[in-house]
Parts: sequence; structure tokens; C-alpha cells
Amino acid sequence: METIARREYVSAAVIRRLPRYYRFLGSLLARGVTRISSREIAEMMGLTASQIRQDLNCFGGFGQQGYGYNVEVLRAEIGRILGLDKGFRAILVGAGNMGKAIANYVDFANKGFNLIGIFDKDPAKIGTRVAGHTIRSTDEITEFCRDYKPDVAVLTIPIKATKTMLDTLVAAGVTGYWNFTHYDILYDYPHCAVESVFLEDSMMTLSYLVNDRRQNSEQE
Amino acid sequence: METIARREYVSAAVIRRLPRYYRFLGSLLARGVTRISSREIAEMMGLTASQIRQDLNCFGGFGQQGYGYNVEVLRAEIGRILGLDKGFRAILVGAGNMGKAIANYVDFANKGFNLIGIFDKDPAKIGTRVAGHTIRSTDEITEFCRDYKPDVAVLTIPIKATKTMLDTLVAAGVTGYWNFTHYDILYDYPHCAVESVFLEDSMMTLSYLVNDRRQNSEQE
Repeated sequence: METIARREYVSAAVIRRLPRYYRFLGSLLARGVTRISSREIAEMMGLTASQIRQDLNCFGGFGQQGYGYNVEVLRAEIGRILGLDKGFRAILVGAGNMGKAIANYVDFANKGFNLIGIFDKDPAKIGTRVAGHTIRSTDEITEFCRDYKPDVAVLTIPIKATKTMLDTLVAAGVTGYWNFTHYDILYDYPHCAVESVFLEDSMMTLSYLVNDRRQNSEQE
Repeated sequence: METIARREYVSAAVIRRLPRYYRFLGSLLARGVTRISSREIAEMMGLTASQIRQDLNCFGGFGQQGYGYNVEVLRAEIGRILGLDKGFRAILVGAGNMGKAIANYVDFANKGFNLIGIFDKDPAKIGTRVAGHTIRSTDEITEFCRDYKPDVAVLTIPIKATKTMLDTLVAAGVTGYWNFTHYDILYDYPHCAVESVFLEDSMMTLSYLVNDRRQNSEQE
């Protein structure tokens, strides 16, 4: 299929924008909008119309000149490109504050993931329930992976524990990681699919922006 | 000062790398490393030496040809550029799962922020304690901002509640936002300093990467 064949040339920046398009088109659908032009998308999203046409052309293009895009078809297609229809199996490792928040707060099912297990090494947590799951011991994780073949592990463990856990998970065949630790997974395992959320870096970036804004307004 | 005067030309990509340098230099210091060359930094961080020299030159440059960088001085200087020495005052709005996780999990104090208040509108939560703070009613937020002048609000509220809360906070003089909602703050308030963490977009990006990796390995 053309869409798949063209994929390797898609830039990281385009990939980053796809979830935004997907969300945006969902909000249009919820408001009953069925058809939209690239110019309208551009205005509402603060991008240029040509950027939007370029982005969507990366995947074969879905618009008809002069008619705009069918919102439902375009959204479904972007969802397919994102793999949201695949139902990837995810486990969550580390049921501390962050792990529990992710399990409770993130809508896995609506983002194409099926959360199938939560693990922790703390005996006080094992057996208790979080987000409808009974927390399992990390001692069982290899066996669990053999039986249920998760595609993705959400890592919400301390950075000190990450290297050992990662070695275990990679050996057990887990190749996708949603990484909340500050550990550089790709450095050790470049063949994995890794998406990292570095909250401390994000907070330092905010500090820079606040500081910068303040100095600029003082100079005005 | 030259460092400040040159700042407006610093690209977003360089700003994004500064927290990584800061963390990396901190881990060197913890291991007793006092001096390092740009080549060594490059190798350990998976960047090129010339990129590192260019990045650090944006802020005036701190290295001496042939001697490398003094780790402690360079880290302190990057921390200063990031504004980590400013002790910005932060409030957290929305003490649900995510808000509680952020309050408990993120090391505000070590990232230049002083968390001074947590707010929620749920009467069942008001008065209970999270991360050493008693949760206050959002009804008090305007008065609190007048008295304590927070620099930053961490928004961990539902997207439906965001517009109203944002109007209240901006009117109360809060101009920095760590945004966990999917609301586009800069669209309404372009003068604010906004750093967003879009967890659902991040998860969809992971779905893309896992899907892409799988299709590539099937083609091999």
C-alpha cells in the first residue's frame, strides 16, 4: 500500500503533528462538522494551509481540490496511520504516585492501547488494586510477558531501577517503551520504539520561559 | 550583561537541550568529574562536539580551548540561564490523580520552583492534605494570587474547566503555565509563558512508533 511504503520518509515533526490533527478532527466531529478545508483547519490550528496540505500529502493525501476533507474519513485515516486501531497491549511498571496517576488519568483504550497489567516490586503494593488491575510482583514479569506478549511497557520507576528492569523487559521481548524515567533507553537499545516524557526537563524549560519573559518585559 | 542580551536569538531547539546538559553535568558532578571536553560531552550524550560548542556559545561560551569545561561552573551557569536560581512561586490547580502525582513526584524545589499552594473545586478534597499542602478551594484563588503572587500555575484540571480557570488566573496576574490539559493557552493568551505536557499526544506518538517499527521489521 502506498501509505505504508511512503512512511519511512515522514519527518519527526510531521509525526508530532498527527496526534494534534487527530484530536482536532475529533473535536470537529463532536460538534457535527462533516467537511473542512485545509484553510479552515489552518486558521483554527494556527498553522498554514500549505503546511497542512504538505503534512497530509505525506500519507497520500485525502482531500479533493475545492471540496475540502471529509472530517470522519480523514480522522479515521490519521488514526490508522497512528496505529490506534491496532490495540497494542501495554503493561505499566512502577505503581508509585506517577504510575497510579498514569493508570487512572490516561485513557489508554481510546488511544489504541489495552492496559493488561500493572507491576511493582513493593510487597505492600502487590495484590492491591489500581485502575481496575491487581498489582503484580515484578518477579512475575518475565513469565507474564511470555504468556501475554505486551507490545509496550510504561516505565514509571526510579531511574536507579531502570537499567535492570529494561534488560529484563527487552530479554522478554518488549520493544516499545513509554518512558517517564530520565534513562536514555535508545542509547542501550537503539532498535526499540521509545517515546519519553521528561517532566523535570519540561519544568526546567518552563523556568527558562518564565525567566526569559520576565527579562524581556523588564527591558520594555 | 552579554548573556542576557544574546538570549532572544536562542532557538527553541537549544533551549530544549539545556535541561539535558544540566542533568548530564549534575550526574558528572555526582561521580566526581570536575572537567570535561566538548568531545567527551558529545560522546556521552550522543551529540556532535561542534553542536555542543555551538549550543554553549549561544550563551557566551564557557570553555577554554584545550582545557575543556569546568563541570561545576558550566552547570551553575546553565542553571542560571534556565532561571533555576530564581525560586519561582508555583501553584497547582486540580488535585485529581494527575495533580497529586505531580505534587508528589516532581521535585519542584530542586528545579527552581517553590510550590506554595494546591487548589481544587471538589468540596470533598478541600481541606485534605497532598504533598505537605492543605488543598484550598478554587474560590480563594484570586485572593491567594493577590496575596502571594505566584509566577506559575500547574494546570491539572479537565479541559472543560480550563478556559474559565485560565481567565481567572490571567486576570489575577499569573503569566506562566505548566499545562497538562490539551487546551491551547497561547492561542488565547499569547503573552504568557507556556510549557505543555500533552500525555495523550505522547501516547499516540508511541503508537505510531510501535506500529512503524513493526511494519519495518515485517518488511525486512
